[in-house]
Amino acid sequence: MLTKILLSEDQLPKQWYNIIPDMPGQMAPVIHPVTMQPVTPDDLLPLFPMGLIEQEVSQERWIDIPEEVREIYKLWRPSPMFRAHKLEKALGTPAKIYYKYEGVSPAGSHKPNTAVPQAYYNKIAGTKRIASETGAGQWGSSIAMACQLFGLKCTVYMVKVSYGQKPYRKSMMQLWGAEVFPSPSNRTSAGRAILAKDPDNQGSLGIAISEAVEDAATHEDTRYSLGSVLNHVCMHQTIIGLEAKEQLKIAGDYPDVVIGCHGGGSNFAGIAFPFVSDKANGKEVRLLAVEPASCPTLTKGIYAFDYGDTAKMAPISRMYTLGHDFMPPGIHAGGLRYHGASPLVSQLVHEGIVETRAVPQIACFEAAVLFARTESIIPAPESSHAIRGAIDEALLAKEEGKERVILFNLSGHGHVDMAAYDAYLNNELQDYEYPEDAIKESLSHLPKVG
Amino acid sequence: MLTKILLSEDQLPKQWYNIIPDMPGQMAPVIHPVTMQPVTPDDLLPLFPMGLIEQEVSQERWIDIPEEVREIYKLWRPSPMFRAHKLEKALGTPAKIYYKYEGVSPAGSHKPNTAVPQAYYNKIAGTKRIASETGAGQWGSSIAMACQLFGLKCTVYMVKVSYGQKPYRKSMMQLWGAEVFPSPSNRTSAGRAILAKDPDNQGSLGIAISEAVEDAATHEDTRYSLGSVLNHVCMHQTIIGLEAKEQLKIAGDYPDVVIGCHGGGSNFAGIAFPFVSDKANGKEVRLLAVEPASCPTLTKGIYAFDYGDTAKMAPISRMYTLGHDFMPPGIHAGGLRYHGASPLVSQLVHEGIVETRAVPQIACFEAAVLFARTESIIPAPESSHAIRGAIDEALLAKEEGKERVILFNLSGHGHVDMAAYDAYLNNELQDYEYPEDAIKESLSHLPKVG
Repeated sequence: MLTKILLSEDQLPKQWYNIIPDMPGQMAPVIHPVTMQPVTPDDLLPLFPMGLIEQEVSQERWIDIPEEVREIYKLWRPSPMFRAHKLEKALGTPAKIYYKYEGVSPAGSHKPNTAVPQAYYNKIAGTKRIASETGAGQWGSSIAMACQLFGLKCTVYMVKVSYGQKPYRKSMMQLWGAEVFPSPSNRTSAGRAILAKDPDNQGSLGIAISEAVEDAATHEDTRYSLGSVLNHVCMHQTIIGLEAKEQLKIAGDYPDVVIGCHGGGSNFAGIAFPFVSDKANGKEVRLLAVEPASCPTLTKGIYAFDYGDTAKMAPISRMYTLGHDFMPPGIHAGGLRYHGASPLVSQLVHEGIVETRAVPQIACFEAAVLFARTESIIPAPESSHAIRGAIDEALLAKEEGKERVILFNLSGHGHVDMAAYDAYLNNELQDYEYPEDAIKESLSHLPKVG
Repeated sequence: MLTKILLSEDQLPKQWYNIIPDMPGQMAPVIHPVTMQPVTPDDLLPLFPMGLIEQEVSQERWIDIPEEVREIYKLWRPSPMFRAHKLEKALGTPAKIYYKYEGVSPAGSHKPNTAVPQAYYNKIAGTKRIASETGAGQWGSSIAMACQLFGLKCTVYMVKVSYGQKPYRKSMMQLWGAEVFPSPSNRTSAGRAILAKDPDNQGSLGIAISEAVEDAATHEDTRYSLGSVLNHVCMHQTIIGLEAKEQLKIAGDYPDVVIGCHGGGSNFAGIAFPFVSDKANGKEVRLLAVEPASCPTLTKGIYAFDYGDTAKMAPISRMYTLGHDFMPPGIHAGGLRYHGASPLVSQLVHEGIVETRAVPQIACFEAAVLFARTESIIPAPESSHAIRGAIDEALLAKEEGKERVILFNLSGHGHVDMAAYDAYLNNELQDYEYPEDAIKESLSHLPKVG
């Protein structure tokens, strides 16, 4: 019985897939937050090394993965794909459920797929330090690990609510040599301004991004790094989907639906983008992004120009957004608490190529517990959104009596998130109301562009 | 550059290696704690299913791995082997350091290698519930996971000091459906007797074993399961060393020294036993067991008959022991806090085939942090003892200017042990004095056998 599908190291992709030349419709420009004009590559140099800026705007469909990066990828890649036989049996579904497992990386999630090349391109550009932000800490721990590998210093602004909820991820960052500050902090004017208004502010990704961007922009030897949203980040993550396609070929299957959880978009992009051109070429494949009901960017936000951060220091992109000053409730899937979304994913949603669904927290933990009790792997709370999506698709297949092939991205393990499982098992978790008024309010602050 | 050495699923061993027929010298009998006569297989039936009792005493060198067990092994096996190029470089050593990585299992350690077959043999024998104990929780989480897979109930007595230190491992057990009690508990007469004398008793593996054994012995549908020490447990773990030998062949190397950390002995046995017969056949290979200086069973204990547990309910074996009522200090490597040792490993030590070394806690964390900052993987505190041993061997090779091949077992990841790393990084850890008086006292209570 084929349960695990492995690729050899020789089959580790040599190139990332850049979806930009295959995007439907016209891509909107990115707008400078001060001049309100389209940003140029030069505008971005205080924040990013040229190697990444080039990737951000490249029209090349395939971008070579540097050999130094591939060598590090080999620590955990190609990652395994599994057929979830036991979960299928528990659901009594005729569907075949496959999942790609990214929890095998040393940080326990998919985030090192982009942390490593980002650290690499910074290293060769002469960067000495990277400033970044993190929610639940999957990204922060990954960029800390990557900086350690390339001898870069690393400063992480960690959303305060997660700093308290996920102390182990903070410790992982420190173990990998990073300095970590709860955000909002008093180290930046962005942080100080927020604390002045609200000393108990629990933070958001938008605020933490402001702090990290300010830190990088005001220090000559420092660059900024983002763990999701941007084009080059989504591109680095396509290694997931590229491997998954090869693995499904070995299994002799092709997915009816490809599912990823959605926060900033890179993990969803990673599994889904390599299937977009198949879809354009007439293959029937659905692409489904699953987000938390408490931070429903794709399902309740609007498609508009907005700042990437709360303090309006980051570039303005056209994307689905809940407004840059929206403060999402403190759910345990801290990695999904972002007001905006990848412009690439947003455009694909807008064009009707990507489907979206919002699911409440408790239903996700219910799915994660069923998964852990059948497939043995304990999922990260973020990944549990993809599992919820996959289970619902499998139950639908059962209802309709149809054999379907479902592929989802199990983006990380939950060993560092056990406090969240404790809360679920002890019936202490709550579902947050969809914060309609707060979203309406924050959406009234969008920038005027063009 | 060869960094990761993989085996295909076809290369997953089909048999475990049973060292009993290859043991040097005469094996001592196991003694019944009540009759003080050699135990018979029938004596063990209240505790173990016949399938495991047969393995415990088998004279067959190779034992088939059931297909149901191999199917589950494939979730994470064959496990990867890595060459620690970056660690070697940091040490400036001419030695080649290889490590076998067992942290890829769903529980994050090597323990599922035996938990799965133990649950399997119990299942086919009609057992409804398994009672067991755990120190740091690597074993408890693994037996919980395995019971869940085979539909068995699971009760775990967790050493109280670890119950407090490692709350996430307790949560993992509960997530996998087990009930978990801090030990000593008031659920057993063994536990109640200890609490009556000392209500603040922080527990030990010896006490927790007493509780689990009593639970199993007093419930018809329940059997007992041990995560280390016993012959069949060591045998299940030989899958590690069997794979490692094949992987080193691919690398074109043979080890000068094979290193494992040592608590009860199964993880060391797993990596080392498959090399014992090579050694008997004239191959020059050293086998090194590394234990904590605060619980120095192999280096400061005596080779004598002793009870496996504190309440004298478990069988009496000839082994290295610190005395069955020795209470080890509360180091973070909770899995290594056991007064006794595997009789098989003990005999190999006694015969001069296995070398031993005791290392203090802080030196182990120092080694673990260097490892995490070079090789990226965060080790479990238990595994850090093997790393300390490997680093010391590599430094010796440097001093002597000799190229040596070092193999060690990285038995688990430390994502659930970050509080221990926090304590180390904040200089809050202490090294415990070798507790000479306590050991002398407990060694005065050994049973009189024969």
